[in-house]
Amino acid sequence: MSTQRAGQRFGFLGPEGTFTEAALRSLPLGEGDEALPQRTVVAAIDAVRAGTVDAAMVPFESSIEGSVPSTLDELATGGPLLIIREVAIPVGFSLLARPETSLAAVKVIATHPHGEAQCRRWVIDHLPEARVELVSSTAAAAAAVGDGAYDAAIAAPIAGERYGLVELATDIADNAGAFTRFVLLARPDRLPPPTGNDKTSLVAFIRDNHTGALLEVLTEFATRGVNLTRIESRPTKERLGQYCFSLDCEGHVAEARVGDALAALKRICADVRFLGSYPRSGGEPTPLPPGRADADFAAATEWVARLRNGVIA
Amino acid sequence: MSTQRAGQRFGFLGPEGTFTEAALRSLPLGEGDEALPQRTVVAAIDAVRAGTVDAAMVPFESSIEGSVPSTLDELATGGPLLIIREVAIPVGFSLLARPETSLAAVKVIATHPHGEAQCRRWVIDHLPEARVELVSSTAAAAAAVGDGAYDAAIAAPIAGERYGLVELATDIADNAGAFTRFVLLARPDRLPPPTGNDKTSLVAFIRDNHTGALLEVLTEFATRGVNLTRIESRPTKERLGQYCFSLDCEGHVAEARVGDALAALKRICADVRFLGSYPRSGGEPTPLPPGRADADFAAATEWVARLRNGVIA
Amino acid sequence: MSTQRAGQRFGFLGPEGTFTEAALRSLPLGEGDEALPQRTVVAAIDAVRAGTVDAAMVPFESSIEGSVPSTLDELATGGPLLIIREVAIPVGFSLLARPETSLAAVKVIATHPHGEAQCRRWVIDHLPEARVELVSSTAAAAAAVGDGAYDAAIAAPIAGERYGLVELATDIADNAGAFTRFVLLARPDRLPPPTGNDKTSLVAFIRDNHTGALLEVLTEFATRGVNLTRIESRPTKERLGQYCFSLDCEGHVAEARVGDALAALKRICADVRFLGSYPRSGGEPTPLPPGRADADFAAATEWVARLRNGVIA
Amino acid sequence: MSTQRAGQRFGFLGPEGTFTEAALRSLPLGEGDEALPQRTVVAAIDAVRAGTVDAAMVPFESSIEGSVPSTLDELATGGPLLIIREVAIPVGFSLLARPETSLAAVKVIATHPHGEAQCRRWVIDHLPEARVELVSSTAAAAAAVGDGAYDAAIAAPIAGERYGLVELATDIADNAGAFTRFVLLARPDRLPPPTGNDKTSLVAFIRDNHTGALLEVLTEFATRGVNLTRIESRPTKERLGQYCFSLDCEGHVAEARVGDALAALKRICADVRFLGSYPRSGGEPTPLPPGRADADFAAATEWVARLRNGVIA
Repeated sequence: MSTQRAGQRFGFLGPEGTFTEAALRSLPLGEGDEALPQRTVVAAIDAVRAGTVDAAMVPFESSIEGSVPSTLDELATGGPLLIIREVAIPVGFSLLARPETSLAAVKVIATHPHGEAQCRRWVIDHLPEARVELVSSTAAAAAAVGDGAYDAAIAAPIAGERYGLVELATDIADNAGAFTRFVLLARPDRLPPPTGNDKTSLVAFIRDNHTGALLEVLTEFATRGVNLTRIESRPTKERLGQYCFSLDCEGHVAEARVGDALAALKRICADVRFLGSYPRSGGEPTPLPPGRADADFAAATEWVARLRNGVIA
Repeated sequence: MSTQRAGQRFGFLGPEGTFTEAALRSLPLGEGDEALPQRTVVAAIDAVRAGTVDAAMVPFESSIEGSVPSTLDELATGGPLLIIREVAIPVGFSLLARPETSLAAVKVIATHPHGEAQCRRWVIDHLPEARVELVSSTAAAAAAVGDGAYDAAIAAPIAGERYGLVELATDIADNAGAFTRFVLLARPDRLPPPTGNDKTSLVAFIRDNHTGALLEVLTEFATRGVNLTRIESRPTKERLGQYCFSLDCEGHVAEARVGDALAALKRICADVRFLGSYPRSGGEPTPLPPGRADADFAAATEWVARLRNGVIA
Repeated sequence: MSTQRAGQRFGFLGPEGTFTEAALRSLPLGEGDEALPQRTVVAAIDAVRAGTVDAAMVPFESSIEGSVPSTLDELATGGPLLIIREVAIPVGFSLLARPETSLAAVKVIATHPHGEAQCRRWVIDHLPEARVELVSSTAAAAAAVGDGAYDAAIAAPIAGERYGLVELATDIADNAGAFTRFVLLARPDRLPPPTGNDKTSLVAFIRDNHTGALLEVLTEFATRGVNLTRIESRPTKERLGQYCFSLDCEGHVAEARVGDALAALKRICADVRFLGSYPRSGGEPTPLPPGRADADFAAATEWVARLRNGVIA
Repeated sequence: MSTQRAGQRFGFLGPEGTFTEAALRSLPLGEGDEALPQRTVVAAIDAVRAGTVDAAMVPFESSIEGSVPSTLDELATGGPLLIIREVAIPVGFSLLARPETSLAAVKVIATHPHGEAQCRRWVIDHLPEARVELVSSTAAAAAAVGDGAYDAAIAAPIAGERYGLVELATDIADNAGAFTRFVLLARPDRLPPPTGNDKTSLVAFIRDNHTGALLEVLTEFATRGVNLTRIESRPTKERLGQYCFSLDCEGHVAEARVGDALAALKRICADVRFLGSYPRSGGEPTPLPPGRADADFAAATEWVARLRNGVIA
């Protein structure tokens, strides 16, 4: 995402005021760039595929918005897209209300089911009389509060800015310190260059569901010293019980060990869908075991080439 | 779930008319049994823990309701519960409307975001002029249609029965044949007995996030011929990047190979949470490789016992 | 071993009449070729290194001559040599005597300890009164019988031809059907071309003696569908308890899966010594699992190259 | 080997003066114990089986005597025997001669082929004019020198004592520091008790020769933290290309991780032959990874037993 190319159009999972918008806004957007809310993850992804937007930010893992399965499933099928960036942001819930509303006056709270689940104890402790109404997103809850439909919303702070609300309380989640990962998707073009601290995402469709098929896939990563950071089996659309695996690993496909692991997967799997290599958001790269650096791969390949020519020394 | 103990109370993810209720109703409920809708997955699980209900049906995998992460996360923490039954039902969407509404008269459709995503092509092809409004569940959409707020809902057929709607169209999902898995949760007591075609669920918390930690976990299953049917890495609440693994495998903990694999996990993992062994819904057990039947385990154990006593023959 | 280059000099583990000479004579030697007995395996190997002979045949596996450890140890150290051919011949022992000797007249039999071990039951059954004297090789036993030092020798039939003896009994080993593998060694030059049914030999020196170091080595073969046909841990000269592994596998280093496995070993091991790729003597190649043919490797490598250029389709 | 039971009969690979006798003499033999030379390894093993001796010392690994394959093959078949002790001794060659012989007077040296190989450089440097004759054992060489057949023998120092020879030179091997392992065999009765630093030996006959069969065997050790110290594939007698594996590992079968690994092998292999658990000679036990101690196995087994009774906490 270049900031010198002014005038890019970014979609994000809306409405305005979602955590996803907060993730997008955390990037260094250019002056003429636009941030365009999309009604659903699927709509955001389709907008990239159709060229309506240049890129789109969508939730990817452990989402408060509940949209992760859609993201994974959409990326695994349809026209190919690339993850070009990831953003992990703390998910801090606030209690948002119109400026004139006092805490004591809050009788009805709107939020998404996950917001309700994550802040339930706070509500019981601080607003034991309040009733919680569930709506389709935390931002929609804030919007509805702005419209006067409810007294308060449990939502992201950014939603307060969007809908003219103030924070009656901040960081009200029962478990502090939750993060959510968002990814910025674009049409395939060229990959972001390796930075030394990257991640690679892919979907592996196994040939058959035998005991140990996943073990074979993971072994190809482990033998090359490539650390996995996420794995999920996903039923394929065809049939419950037939699986593909959605994986994130450390490293960039331009690095020898990652490229070599992907090539191995390509050989042993029915299909492999590459979803991108992109700068990692936070976290240090796991130290490589001996023999897994690019120079090691190059030296070993040259050695075999020499052997094949009868040069044994 | 015994049918002779009349008067059991079953919670389910509500409101009335969800696919989850359909899953619960597919069981042979007893005459005096009650089916009680719960507002959220978390509420349903808490109701079991609190004893308000005897058991609760919640979505578990590939959910249309978007609630799977809550189910997994709730089961992984808090007071222990057991899965005592699974139900896999086809997820067939219908277009539901009040009896007097014709297809041509449908201008505004309500549904959950997943319903929208899965039926989009049908809507474009058959109701190109219609607008889709997103709400918190497919059943809530049907209820709102019953109240006159929208013209039609994309929801489960059961929702039509609950809210006095009729089916204007059936099986309108773009991908036919989708199934969703639901699980029936109860307080730990005694396990359902093995049936010969069971599944076991658990959460494994790895000691550290080194390359190959997951490989070690999977190897314990593979060496014993235990077939995995689902795996997901889940960030632990403490920190993004520290993982546990949520797993389903074939077989019952009462079977030697499964019990032995679980014991191995208990030794090599920081912690293992057992979520139950229960009859499988559909699918045939994967044939065992040689040497993994209960009799093989018993014979091998006896052989080692004899060796320890110097009986070598 | 080319038959058109007349006048090649072949060493073999002597003296004349050993099974090793029989192995050498089984090859299509050229008219002017010489077969030169060497006193020991080490002497035969040194003769190749020194250029005294062009190639040398030595026993390699399951030897009757008891020399295999020398062969392995010598190949693992010192100037590099290549195995360019293997010969597996049935090890059929005969009872050899001077023409005038009848079976009933045999009172003292000479042989190598292994000959004694393998034919003991036959001697007990047929010559219960005979005494067996142990000497340094079966051929030396035959030579000594020719010199009149003993009545009969248990040796290879070829030893009878060499020393003017006749066969009083043939195939007298208690276990019929034993084979021994011999290898023809040459200075490194160019490899024999792949034939579609080859073997590759090597020595892998592991980095440290941790649990699972060998497992890692074997995994590199198994993931690429390369079948091992022999493995031996060998204490390194430095210290008992520090090991290297001597390995044979199916396939030729010119084949992608074998070259790739060797490159992987080169990366993860302290050192790898390549001992040659050569036509296999007998046996069918193990069928490859899907995705391990040369074309699969080429296609996967190209796919990764395209990914790195942002070509995702 | 108890020293209070005076009068035990110990066989060893003879003749008198072998390194094997040196290994036997390194044990604390009792006053009335007898040490009886056996002509071959097979004869020594048969003497134990027949009850002619109570136990027998034979070379096992990296032998100077060249007898290791016999030992392995004999133990893998026939009546079961147990290794009850191992002895690793430094293999120091001396040049032995009759007392009146000076170094300068040595023209003909007798030794076993391995002695010749290992001391060749010393002979070239110190006795460039001498001729080396090969005989069936280093002790036989010393005996023949005692009889006046040769001028000197390359043999174990103990052989000098036996045959009235003196050491003209000591430690003449080109590679100093070589060790050989010998094992003491007895009829199966009761195992030596665990000492905290033991080894276990066995032979595993794999079901079929598929790629990865050995990998499966090694995985059973690695997952339980059991370190292998020796491995060799051995062609079975039936057919070249069908293999069994001869293995040594750290630990005692009475220890949970070793017993559990053996039970796993018993299940997945066509057959497993246990050769004994016995005190290790030298070397420290490899530190166990977490979760592999006896207490870990016991706790995990109890946990599964509780699960099976529905006790989940």
